[in-house]
Amino acid sequence: MEQLNNKTIDKLLKHVSVRSFTDEPLSDDVVKRLVRAAQAASTASFQQSYSIIDVVDHKLREKVTKASRNQLFMNQGGRLFIFCADLNRNDRMAQNLGLDVTQTIEGSDATLAGTIDATLAAQNMVISAESMDLGVCFIGGVRDNIAEVSELLNIPEHVFPVYGLVIGHPKGQLNKIKPRLPFEAVYHQNKYLDKMDIVKKYDERTSDYYNDRYGHETDRSWSRTAVNSLIKLPRFFIRKYLNNQNLSKH
Amino acid sequence: MEQLNNKTIDKLLKHVSVRSFTDEPLSDDVVKRLVRAAQAASTASFQQSYSIIDVVDHKLREKVTKASRNQLFMNQGGRLFIFCADLNRNDRMAQNLGLDVTQTIEGSDATLAGTIDATLAAQNMVISAESMDLGVCFIGGVRDNIAEVSELLNIPEHVFPVYGLVIGHPKGQLNKIKPRLPFEAVYHQNKYLDKMDIVKKYDERTSDYYNDRYGHETDRSWSRTAVNSLIKLPRFFIRKYLNNQNLSKH
Repeated sequence: MEQLNNKTIDKLLKHVSVRSFTDEPLSDDVVKRLVRAAQAASTASFQQSYSIIDVVDHKLREKVTKASRNQLFMNQGGRLFIFCADLNRNDRMAQNLGLDVTQTIEGSDATLAGTIDATLAAQNMVISAESMDLGVCFIGGVRDNIAEVSELLNIPEHVFPVYGLVIGHPKGQLNKIKPRLPFEAVYHQNKYLDKMDIVKKYDERTSDYYNDRYGHETDRSWSRTAVNSLIKLPRFFIRKYLNNQNLSKH
Repeated sequence: MEQLNNKTIDKLLKHVSVRSFTDEPLSDDVVKRLVRAAQAASTASFQQSYSIIDVVDHKLREKVTKASRNQLFMNQGGRLFIFCADLNRNDRMAQNLGLDVTQTIEGSDATLAGTIDATLAAQNMVISAESMDLGVCFIGGVRDNIAEVSELLNIPEHVFPVYGLVIGHPKGQLNKIKPRLPFEAVYHQNKYLDKMDIVKKYDERTSDYYNDRYGHETDRSWSRTAVNSLIKLPRFFIRKYLNNQNLSKH
């Protein structure tokens, strides 16, 4: 009989994003441990198609922050890691063997595979950081000016930044845990089923969460909040950017 | 001072894929706990753009296995979960509010975001399963015949299966931990740097691993193994498939 509770699961269930950090730095030993934990994750066909850029230079970090919707906490926590899907390495490995996989690397499936590899690694880094009582926040905003961020970080063809991850010592009180969709809304058996009636009930519950978080009545619900951010950030330039990196060409 | 060692990190570092399972089933309570842990992960802009399909029907599971390069262990472990990037829900939420985000949903960034969300959730499921001493294996093979798998699972437009995840009770001895790329090969400071010299050294080390695993001298190294699988599985049809799902259209 499996134990349904243990410290690891307890931590996973208590995850909240942290957007306020103390000045306390992360030591190189901690960073090394975080990266090692990231590397231990599964990777698609064991391609290890990702790289992690640790932005330690203060001026560079400020520039990356400004390019990423200028979320100031990005510039405050212990470290800012940029997780990249990296197909460059695999392409060059083939060249070294006198083989050619460039067409594969430049296809849509390789972009998905690199995104998957970066994300499995990133989530392992998150879990290990939180197990040390550090706080984390993903920064999808690095895709808002993705070409500029890529130039700042010297990112070559066949590589792109998927998101940033800030990790540091949390300052002040943590946010309340955000209520997720009901189990039944994301979980299907055998066939994908229409679950929109469950989403409606969830929206009522999230209104309470947002009213509580903002301290006054709002018209926010999960649906409204999520849809608003899709309207604000369509990122219609991503295909063109990826093509410029010689990715997702077909 | 952060503790560099704890049970969670210890488990992460010991991760190996499991491809041999006992017949012992996973209870519904365990499945519910695994899905809850998956849901607790971060999601891009809190869009929660993923769904999980638990393939419990035996005949259906056999069909999905056959369509996914017929890896027989897929049909053996406690459960087979199919992780889907799901933008359908977000699109319909907008419709319910009288808003239109279809163009955003159908762009390349949304496909990345859905892949990220599915993968953050999947990795949380992996960590929670392994914390219960269960074994796991990702099945990228569901993308080998992705259209057929989608039809079997009734997957609608704006949704696609990213991979499968088998979770069950491990049978027999676990594999040895596969040596990852050296830390310095995936970790960069400030600027992306050429690390191909490090990959060469790693290749020598992985030859030993493969000779040991297969019990005789082979010409396998990480580079050769990884490049071979890129040659075998280019998946050139993924763009067309995604477009048929009304995804990655621009």
